[in-house]
Amino acid sequence: MFTLLKKDKSTKARRGEITTDHGVIQTPFFMPVGTNGTVKSLDFEDLKGLGAQIMLSNTYHLYLRPGMEIIKNHNGLHRLSGWDRPSLTDSGGYQIFSLAKLRKLTDEGVEFQSHLDGSPVYLDPEKVVDIQREFGVDMMMPLDECAPYPCSYEAAKEAAQRTTKWAKRSRDHFLKTKRTDMNQYQFGIIQGSTYQDLREQSAREIIDIDFDGYAVGGVSVGETVKEMFEALDWTEPLMPEDKPRYFMGIGFPDQIVKAVGEGIDMFDCVLPSRYGRHGTAFTHKGRITIKNKEFADDPRPINEKCECMVCQKYSRAYIRHLLKAGEITGLKLLTYCNMYFYVNLMKEIRAAIEEDRFVEFQKEFLTEYGSELAR
Amino acid sequence: MFTLLKKDKSTKARRGEITTDHGVIQTPFFMPVGTNGTVKSLDFEDLKGLGAQIMLSNTYHLYLRPGMEIIKNHNGLHRLSGWDRPSLTDSGGYQIFSLAKLRKLTDEGVEFQSHLDGSPVYLDPEKVVDIQREFGVDMMMPLDECAPYPCSYEAAKEAAQRTTKWAKRSRDHFLKTKRTDMNQYQFGIIQGSTYQDLREQSAREIIDIDFDGYAVGGVSVGETVKEMFEALDWTEPLMPEDKPRYFMGIGFPDQIVKAVGEGIDMFDCVLPSRYGRHGTAFTHKGRITIKNKEFADDPRPINEKCECMVCQKYSRAYIRHLLKAGEITGLKLLTYCNMYFYVNLMKEIRAAIEEDRFVEFQKEFLTEYGSELAR
Repeated sequence: MFTLLKKDKSTKARRGEITTDHGVIQTPFFMPVGTNGTVKSLDFEDLKGLGAQIMLSNTYHLYLRPGMEIIKNHNGLHRLSGWDRPSLTDSGGYQIFSLAKLRKLTDEGVEFQSHLDGSPVYLDPEKVVDIQREFGVDMMMPLDECAPYPCSYEAAKEAAQRTTKWAKRSRDHFLKTKRTDMNQYQFGIIQGSTYQDLREQSAREIIDIDFDGYAVGGVSVGETVKEMFEALDWTEPLMPEDKPRYFMGIGFPDQIVKAVGEGIDMFDCVLPSRYGRHGTAFTHKGRITIKNKEFADDPRPINEKCECMVCQKYSRAYIRHLLKAGEITGLKLLTYCNMYFYVNLMKEIRAAIEEDRFVEFQKEFLTEYGSELAR
Repeated sequence: MFTLLKKDKSTKARRGEITTDHGVIQTPFFMPVGTNGTVKSLDFEDLKGLGAQIMLSNTYHLYLRPGMEIIKNHNGLHRLSGWDRPSLTDSGGYQIFSLAKLRKLTDEGVEFQSHLDGSPVYLDPEKVVDIQREFGVDMMMPLDECAPYPCSYEAAKEAAQRTTKWAKRSRDHFLKTKRTDMNQYQFGIIQGSTYQDLREQSAREIIDIDFDGYAVGGVSVGETVKEMFEALDWTEPLMPEDKPRYFMGIGFPDQIVKAVGEGIDMFDCVLPSRYGRHGTAFTHKGRITIKNKEFADDPRPINEKCECMVCQKYSRAYIRHLLKAGEITGLKLLTYCNMYFYVNLMKEIRAAIEEDRFVEFQKEFLTEYGSELAR
């Protein structure tokens, strides 16, 4: 599944490839988030046009709507949606704890009420594997318990322990239910909140189960940037070199550039689309709020260093006008540019690693971006 | 400006070309409506991809937002927006009467309150020409008074008379303010509501002023289909053959197919985008509401006879799912397909006229569409 092509000499950055039935993914990479099976305001031509290698979707949302029957009848998500590049789905665990009304959480599984219509739903580790087998995704995450932030030591310990128990059941069930018509990969998720011993113990237990890749979970839940990188620093040395590493839900561009240097291969985040919908653009010089009056008459592209379709054709003044007029097209253009920024950033990172200049790239990027992470 | 290439033998249908500084338009044609300088939910790559030859925008909306200063500073709408194909703007008259709060309407001009912030605005025929000169559009409409429906004979007569007075002032001012750096064309608008003598008199007066083309206005305001076509039938014989003819705000696909046979060259309508946003698709077999439950599991494209990007790649089931989930992408895909349907219908019409089979095309289309206009 994973081929490590190159290790950076001065940092932990890696350059590799993940081979799936829907194509080869160059690592490190960013996964645009398509909660309901689409990235908000973009279509698949847009995603391909801006160079997205993969789309991440949410098991919880798709399980509830359109629901299993329709997904099964279409032989999975790829066929239903028409997305023909690789796919990854999360486990739904995060949304069960953040969106749905919890009715009962036991070691067995979790009963909750749908955020859509309040109807009762039950999920457990085996069922989540079954769902993702039916989805036909290339990579899947197992059901875990994502501790909130802040979280007491006791609660964090309990969540990590349950995550390990569920991880074992998930992997067992995964190995028993292999599809003969396609390759699917399953990642383990490391929990442990902001506690070093819990993070390390979780990492050892999850890695011991032997998944196809490993994710640092329970981050991007409100913790400080320092705590976010601590969770990574504590667990990264324990992760096997020959499997892909995923920093879940991270993050801002500077955090991604930093985390690649800490040995991470995979990222996902709602920020490029969410900020786009709220009128803010990511540029090499940091974020700019295109909606602001100062851009009302600005004939320049959103990001003067950007080569995306939007920056080749549209001005800040026009996009601001569309946003002020409430035009969906404005949201789309800004989201497109933001998503290109993230996807292209990974391309720049990969080139820098290949050309043995990642550490310089990192320094330059963080400085120009005005990042607190610049050293 | 206008070259009549061919006249159909059995109907009044015509095939021609309009030459503008932004390209040659093949007639008959449909103008996607971009009220605020964009077609709702589509970008210009989409519009070009589906074959749009021209975009219509609204003077009233653009005059109020982003406003003249920004448009002037960018040297007009084309430069501001990046749209590089031909453009037409309406006069704003329709919106003054439908959207804004009217304060005072005299033969001199009209004072109203902006629908955005209630601020007072004054427009008169000369000012509307000046605005569109600054916009730098290829074709412009003069300020007119669009009578409501239903309308008393007296009120309709007064509106038509004022429209003629304003048309003379508009044309005089247009001829006095010619730009040296670009060609712009101005259309006359025929009013007269549902009254034959008023329509005929308005047509004679407006045509006597000698515009670059003629529009039948005051239709698509709530009148019956019979009344809509009466307004056309009464005035079409009076219109000169060597100038383009525009049926304003029309309409449903079957009405367009019918009106081409009555000698019309130009159409605009908000229906393809508006219906798209409300979950309804136009197909050769009439309208279908993709949001309906019957399409939840339907793997077919929206329109099985359609060759657009959306119908090549996306299923009814997926688009319905996106619409139900409130995803902007669903609106975009449906709007794209609807707009392609309209634009491509005109292409089919042009081919039919060229190949001397328009009357058969018309009969087949109206029958398959299930139109009340099928004879």
